Amino acid sequence: MSFAIGKRCWVLADGYIPADSTGAPPEMLSHEALCILNTGSDPVRVVLTLYFEDRDPVGPYEFRVEGRRTRHQRFNDLSDPAPVPKGIGYACVLEADAPVVVQQTRLDSRQSENALLSTLAYPA
Amino acid sequence: MSFAIGKRCWVLADGYIPADSTGAPPEMLSHEALCILNTGSDPVRVVLTLYFEDRDPVGPYEFRVEGRRTRHQRFNDLSDPAPVPKGIGYACVLEADAPVVVQQTRLDSRQSENALLSTLAYPA
Amino acid sequence: MSFAIGKRCWVLADGYIPADSTGAPPEMLSHEALCILNTGSDPVRVVLTLYFEDRDPVGPYEFRVEGRRTRHQRFNDLSDPAPVPKGIGYACVLEADAPVVVQQTRLDSRQSENALLSTLAYPA
Amino acid sequence: MSFAIGKRCWVLADGYIPADSTGAPPEMLSHEALCILNTGSDPVRVVLTLYFEDRDPVGPYEFRVEGRRTRHQRFNDLSDPAPVPKGIGYACVLEADAPVVVQQTRLDSRQSENALLSTLAYPA
Repeated sequence: MSFAIGKRCWVLADGYIPADSTGAPPEMLSHEALCILNTGSDPVRVVLTLYFEDRDPVGPYEFRVEGRRTRHQRFNDLSDPAPVPKGIGYACVLEADAPVVVQQTRLDSRQSENALLSTLAYPA
Repeated sequence: MSFAIGKRCWVLADGYIPADSTGAPPEMLSHEALCILNTGSDPVRVVLTLYFEDRDPVGPYEFRVEGRRTRHQRFNDLSDPAPVPKGIGYACVLEADAPVVVQQTRLDSRQSENALLSTLAYPA
Repeated sequence: MSFAIGKRCWVLADGYIPADSTGAPPEMLSHEALCILNTGSDPVRVVLTLYFEDRDPVGPYEFRVEGRRTRHQRFNDLSDPAPVPKGIGYACVLEADAPVVVQQTRLDSRQSENALLSTLAYPA
Repeated sequence: MSFAIGKRCWVLADGYIPADSTGAPPEMLSHEALCILNTGSDPVRVVLTLYFEDRDPVGPYEFRVEGRRTRHQRFNDLSDPAPVPKGIGYACVLEADAPVVVQQTRLDSRQSENALLSTLAYPA
């Protein structure tokens, strides 16, 4: 299969990177990730815009997902144009130049045992 | 991007604020939140109606989400027309006067390590 | 609001009631629940059919959700035509005679700290 | 009910089998499962293709879901054409020759108390 499955715009409304962690990084570091699947043969260019409660949106964050590959991109690792602040709520709009599928997952290890959440993003 | 993404009516069927907490508030307080993203340029007026198992619906709860902002609104912090009771099930219908995207998240710290759940609300 | 929101048929594919529990019942008992919201004015009749991996489907399980009420129905508490077995996978189709919204939530307290999962059911 | 509910193609973007476990297998083994419901009367043939971040897709993984049955298939238990590697991200496209409903669930017992996540897969 090499045709592109999904949508070009996805939204996640509950973004949050817990500020503290218990356990060995990188696996047990508190993090939030956008998991993107590009089933097409060609690379996809992805642009993220982050929204906040008390300040203007920040972006664009740009990266590629190669053809027939997935990319599990941690928000923790984004730095350009600015790192994603920890311990405050945000939201994210993802725009791609070809269809992709997007799922959000958070690992919260603030307390000594980790908690997980995951949901499909909203396909706009 | 300044056009409004999403829908004007969203439903969550499993509402529940755990009655007890372990860990320091406000972060580790057991809570449930509606995370709302307004990608449009103008403020959105949001109205919530809460449904219960054994009593009439309560509402309207009204607030605004500013343009190009997210709002992570804890049910714990709603007070008008009445606080949301803890330890009992409820459900929620959100109506907005412009499109938004809505995700529900719960942090349960009744036991000594927190648990998380999250899901997109149902776009009606 | 008294019109009915949602769909008449919903599916959940991952049903599972953990066989053990830690903590005080009923709250911390390992359980799985179907959370149903009926925004309409009239009662809704709900019929569940349970599917298994190695045996024929079991049902119908029948109950009502009153008008303008939610019902958080634990699978643990179903008994007619048969209790739901613990510790094995199942799936569930819900049929209603008017639109409802359905979300699934599981609390797993097999280990000493509980874990949670939740997702919208699939609207068929 | 014996007609087939759902879709023939589903996607999950966040696949991950934690590499370690705490607690007694098979229940408390860290795992990820595809839960599939076939409400139709006839068996369904399912084909999975797995996508990775740094290598070509792997597949097809083929199996059947019998009529009027669910199948909770752990990725851990797939072996042909190759076992699913642990501790790295993947994604999955499921294709079926008749409609099914698909939900993803992960149990993570790397730390001493387990965490859970679950979401509907994306119906393509």
